[in-house]
Amino acid sequence: MRDPRYDILFEPVQIGPVTARNRFYQVPHCNGMGYRDPSGEAYMRRVKAEGGWAVVCTEQVEIHPTSDIGPFIELRIWDDQDVPALARIADKIHEGGALAGIELAHNGLNSPNLISRETPLAPQNLPVATFSYDPIQARSMTKSDIADLRRWHREAVRRSLQAGYDIVYVYAGHALGGLHHFLSPRYNNRTDEYGGSLTNRMRFLREVLEDTREEADGKAAVACRITIDELLGDAGITKAEIEDVIGSIGEHPDLWDFVLGSWEDDSVTSRFGPEGEQEPYVRGLKQLTTKPVVGVGRFTSPDMMVHQVKSGILDLIGAARPSIADPFLPRKIETGDLEDIRECIGCNICVSGDFTMSPIRCTQNPTMGEEFRRGWHPERIRPKTSDSHVLVVGAGPAGLEAARALGNRGYTVSLAESSRALGGRVEREAKLPGLSAWIRVVDYRVQQIAKLDNVDVFLQSEMTADDILDNDFDHVLLATGAHWRADGVGRWHTHPIDTADGAEVLTPDSIMAGVRPRGRRVVLFDDDHYYLGGVVAELLAKEGFDVTLLTPGAHVSEWTVNTMEVARIRKRLIRAGVACRTNTTLTRVDSDGVGTACVFTGDDGHLPADSVVMVTARMPENRLLDALTARQNGWAQAGLKSVKAVGDAWAPSTIAAAVWAGHRYAEELEEPPAPVVPFRREVTELVAEPDKLLPLTPIQTVRS
Amino acid sequence: MRDPRYDILFEPVQIGPVTARNRFYQVPHCNGMGYRDPSGEAYMRRVKAEGGWAVVCTEQVEIHPTSDIGPFIELRIWDDQDVPALARIADKIHEGGALAGIELAHNGLNSPNLISRETPLAPQNLPVATFSYDPIQARSMTKSDIADLRRWHREAVRRSLQAGYDIVYVYAGHALGGLHHFLSPRYNNRTDEYGGSLTNRMRFLREVLEDTREEADGKAAVACRITIDELLGDAGITKAEIEDVIGSIGEHPDLWDFVLGSWEDDSVTSRFGPEGEQEPYVRGLKQLTTKPVVGVGRFTSPDMMVHQVKSGILDLIGAARPSIADPFLPRKIETGDLEDIRECIGCNICVSGDFTMSPIRCTQNPTMGEEFRRGWHPERIRPKTSDSHVLVVGAGPAGLEAARALGNRGYTVSLAESSRALGGRVEREAKLPGLSAWIRVVDYRVQQIAKLDNVDVFLQSEMTADDILDNDFDHVLLATGAHWRADGVGRWHTHPIDTADGAEVLTPDSIMAGVRPRGRRVVLFDDDHYYLGGVVAELLAKEGFDVTLLTPGAHVSEWTVNTMEVARIRKRLIRAGVACRTNTTLTRVDSDGVGTACVFTGDDGHLPADSVVMVTARMPENRLLDALTARQNGWAQAGLKSVKAVGDAWAPSTIAAAVWAGHRYAEELEEPPAPVVPFRREVTELVAEPDKLLPLTPIQTVRS
Repeated sequence: MRDPRYDILFEPVQIGPVTARNRFYQVPHCNGMGYRDPSGEAYMRRVKAEGGWAVVCTEQVEIHPTSDIGPFIELRIWDDQDVPALARIADKIHEGGALAGIELAHNGLNSPNLISRETPLAPQNLPVATFSYDPIQARSMTKSDIADLRRWHREAVRRSLQAGYDIVYVYAGHALGGLHHFLSPRYNNRTDEYGGSLTNRMRFLREVLEDTREEADGKAAVACRITIDELLGDAGITKAEIEDVIGSIGEHPDLWDFVLGSWEDDSVTSRFGPEGEQEPYVRGLKQLTTKPVVGVGRFTSPDMMVHQVKSGILDLIGAARPSIADPFLPRKIETGDLEDIRECIGCNICVSGDFTMSPIRCTQNPTMGEEFRRGWHPERIRPKTSDSHVLVVGAGPAGLEAARALGNRGYTVSLAESSRALGGRVEREAKLPGLSAWIRVVDYRVQQIAKLDNVDVFLQSEMTADDILDNDFDHVLLATGAHWRADGVGRWHTHPIDTADGAEVLTPDSIMAGVRPRGRRVVLFDDDHYYLGGVVAELLAKEGFDVTLLTPGAHVSEWTVNTMEVARIRKRLIRAGVACRTNTTLTRVDSDGVGTACVFTGDDGHLPADSVVMVTARMPENRLLDALTARQNGWAQAGLKSVKAVGDAWAPSTIAAAVWAGHRYAEELEEPPAPVVPFRREVTELVAEPDKLLPLTPIQTVRS
Repeated sequence: MRDPRYDILFEPVQIGPVTARNRFYQVPHCNGMGYRDPSGEAYMRRVKAEGGWAVVCTEQVEIHPTSDIGPFIELRIWDDQDVPALARIADKIHEGGALAGIELAHNGLNSPNLISRETPLAPQNLPVATFSYDPIQARSMTKSDIADLRRWHREAVRRSLQAGYDIVYVYAGHALGGLHHFLSPRYNNRTDEYGGSLTNRMRFLREVLEDTREEADGKAAVACRITIDELLGDAGITKAEIEDVIGSIGEHPDLWDFVLGSWEDDSVTSRFGPEGEQEPYVRGLKQLTTKPVVGVGRFTSPDMMVHQVKSGILDLIGAARPSIADPFLPRKIETGDLEDIRECIGCNICVSGDFTMSPIRCTQNPTMGEEFRRGWHPERIRPKTSDSHVLVVGAGPAGLEAARALGNRGYTVSLAESSRALGGRVEREAKLPGLSAWIRVVDYRVQQIAKLDNVDVFLQSEMTADDILDNDFDHVLLATGAHWRADGVGRWHTHPIDTADGAEVLTPDSIMAGVRPRGRRVVLFDDDHYYLGGVVAELLAKEGFDVTLLTPGAHVSEWTVNTMEVARIRKRLIRAGVACRTNTTLTRVDSDGVGTACVFTGDDGHLPADSVVMVTARMPENRLLDALTARQNGWAQAGLKSVKAVGDAWAPSTIAAAVWAGHRYAEELEEPPAPVVPFRREVTELVAEPDKLLPLTPIQTVRS
């Protein structure tokens, strides 16, 4: 089954006292479930283990209330109260057949302690380094604090063993793990033995590694996750320093897990960085230690993985995002089913789950985050319950996924697409600057559908209500997508704005269809705030237009703070010559330009323009739904049992949401109706008899 | 005891089938605990009830997964799984002697449904109206959706009764309750019987009120919370329309709860709005209905409250923030202890708890959010356990609160302040534009301390280590505050920046001490991002300086998004003539100006300036701590048992954090050491035996 070229990926790797069954290693990654949804996380991790990852890790786990990174929802190992949830996760990973890793973390400067209200701890007195400018300063750790933290870490290691983990992390990476701050000259200005020279700056890390090793006592492996270059030159950790670190304490852990810079440097989207971007930084480090080495690079290509191993760059192929997009990636390589791999598109919608404190989702893998909640599985789906014939109208992300999943269930499916191409918005958007990897959403599904005899695909097949009612379909799914509005309606304007006769107003749809502004001066109004406004501005600027991007947001493409792209987008637009006018709204379209207003004062202005591009809101493409609904009386006669719309045709949202909605349709077709809350959930357990602790009777009022 | 002038405030008020024992009404307010920390919320609400509020309400409670406003943490009543937590809250409110109100909410456009993944529901197809530009659109509700929502609301009412609530809300306010969106011409463009005329736009509200009344069936009162003016002129809900609404359905609920505009319009900080700001909007509405009427206005003055009732404006004195600052406000009026009232300063740090998904805190009331967690109480504290004499050095917010609370415990306290005034940073900051109400933090504590024979206050009393060791103190608390750095270190720069000889660099400290820039052109570098940079810029601009505010943030005073002030601050600065340069950092101070850099590209620039004001980070004022620590060997001989620093002297943070830290010191002095997690908490209950639901064995893989 397996191509022998890939045999090397299936060699076991010894990691201290434990052995990874192969080289596939799911590195720690956040997931927006954490302490709130522990079984949700446990089953998500189990699916990864089942999919062939030899090691499956948790995200960072706060070891103490002084490392409280709320509002972000990760795991905690503050005391014994947290052990049952952690044990459930480890158990489920073991059930899947993998080693369970736990990323213990003290976040130092990165923990504002909003929930615990404790004072953050850091190498020096500095404001906390969070994503949100919290008005809180950390204090310079005393020797006694350092001793405390070492003790807390030991206790966390002890509890990790108790919970059943096989690999215990020491986290000094991403400017999130507090040991990073000690290591980095950027944050460490200490003059004691923990600051100054590299030997001093790595002292704390060395001590915690020694503690962890001692506490693990051969029962679990010790991993060290470390930033190998802060990308700040001499102002931060450099690769040369890390070479010295490994030269010095290279044998301390049982495994090195290399990361690059801060999180946003390490988890770059495909729009801004290629697969294997970390390679030049990681190269050569492995040679400085006898211990195995893991690193990431958004790896989805087995050849690239083999290259990493054969070139002596990595021993273990680390993955976060590729394991989210395809939890069964290792197994598919193992069984030779390479064409079945759902490759990560590098969009970072997964990351947005962490930033919005909501369960992780994935554009490619609609089952992500639903393993426990809805019992969904990336590779399995229940068989059909009838011989129904389903018509899916529209082969965008929702329609393709519905057809694929319905086909897997065994239904007879006809997929009708009005255009010449499959993929809908993805097919169009993937041609825009930086988004080419997104076509994988289409490629995977087209490939899968091609293997299914029970799914027929029809291109250039516009469907009418007559077509549908005249044919023998049991169910009709409308996945007809949406179109961009040209009337200014979006977030700022909830009613159409005034547009002068003769003004040219384009939308992303017209741009993607090849239309170009008639004159050189273009105002793009972005009231959508995700990626598309910025991408279209970039495209037009590179084509030579004079583009002014106008947005009511404080940032350009503001929602991409959640995909960690916002700064890169702005830089790229500035470099492309786009003038960015933030905090400004469009008030009307004149024949020679646009009216503007400051969002704070309402003060108006005017910008000359030959054309306007509106990136505001979308309207569902629901003419067919309306036509069919109008003829609902005729359904029974036509043998039609149901008509539903999903994805953008129902309510425009992300591509991830469209894929998910298509999948949901397939999962739920002809199944019993779901309860009001259509997913399992876990809620907070009420403390029993708190009144024994907190009597209502006054303790004593001294003053009265 | 009670001044007869205030008798009217203690009249009972009939609310449908239930009776409020007086006119004090804690309106629904968020608290950052909600579904995650239900007992935390329950005990917080209980203290309010105990403090004399006749009605105590929950925050908004999501009635259905299509109304999932995560990441915000409110309550849920999605199904029976949520009832125990809600019942605990109602029980605790009842224990305190109040009626329990529950604010049922379907958030419509305001719920992105990030957790539930359901499609948001709205009067028309529009992007969700959240605080974060989520790339999600709501869809126009069909008749069937409207029927569903009505059914969900009924079920929520039924569960509310089951949980023990006395007052059940219908929420059409703040642009948060979805019924608001139907009522408002801003959001409602429907052409069916739910849109167009006011009669149509209020139809959904009327139906839900009727449903609720029927379902409550005389067992609970029905309250309607409604926005009485959207402050958008004819583009939104106007007062004239609300007069018609009340004229039409004024007798439908048992109580009207009036709110103004959206949340940020209704909960204005004292920097931007006075007590009773809502009065002109609310005035006259009561006369249109026989039902009692409640409204808010950041009321802390009993005379103002009496005026509201006697003038026929309100029947019930609504409060959120004043009840947070002083849960015992009603009781203190009742017992004539007016000078004991801890008046809300209108800083909205309470609101920031909701925005940061962390338990509510209060600048004035350090026990807020700690009622269950730590057993703290705003009016009670355990008595001292020894005859120790405590020296508190520094009479800022931390020192004053520690002295007050220690005094209440019965300790002998000496409070030594080096300056001529009590209050520390609060005394200084309260003189800045817009912050005068903040002096209440000082006034309350000075007043309380004045009543305590066991607390002596010494002004102009700089303390040295010698002074301390030569005197007979058992414990020393250092609350010596912090000073602003002038070296550029903050968030962007972690090491001092280059400053040319002869350049003038000021800080907020120098400005507050009366120093003014030597020339007209001032660059203020705000790398603090909370209020002070903006306030100082405003002050200097109003004094005639040419001020450019430079900040790496995307917003000026960016953290004030969490206090809902950010837009008002920017407008005020623009109007004051301050030039705002966002996304820009300071790189160095030259003799004739400053170097700047774009935070995205690093591109540098130069701004001419005569003076620079640095608002970046602070350094703890810890010389005395260091001096005492250096002489630790001498403590025992001097009878000194402990020396601690708290508040800004330990690690600079908010005033709320300083007050809290001073209080914590007092609570914990000479008490047994706390466990590692120094507070009670509730964690998620793991679902039992999920594997029965989710077997690892494949269900069936059709494809393989």
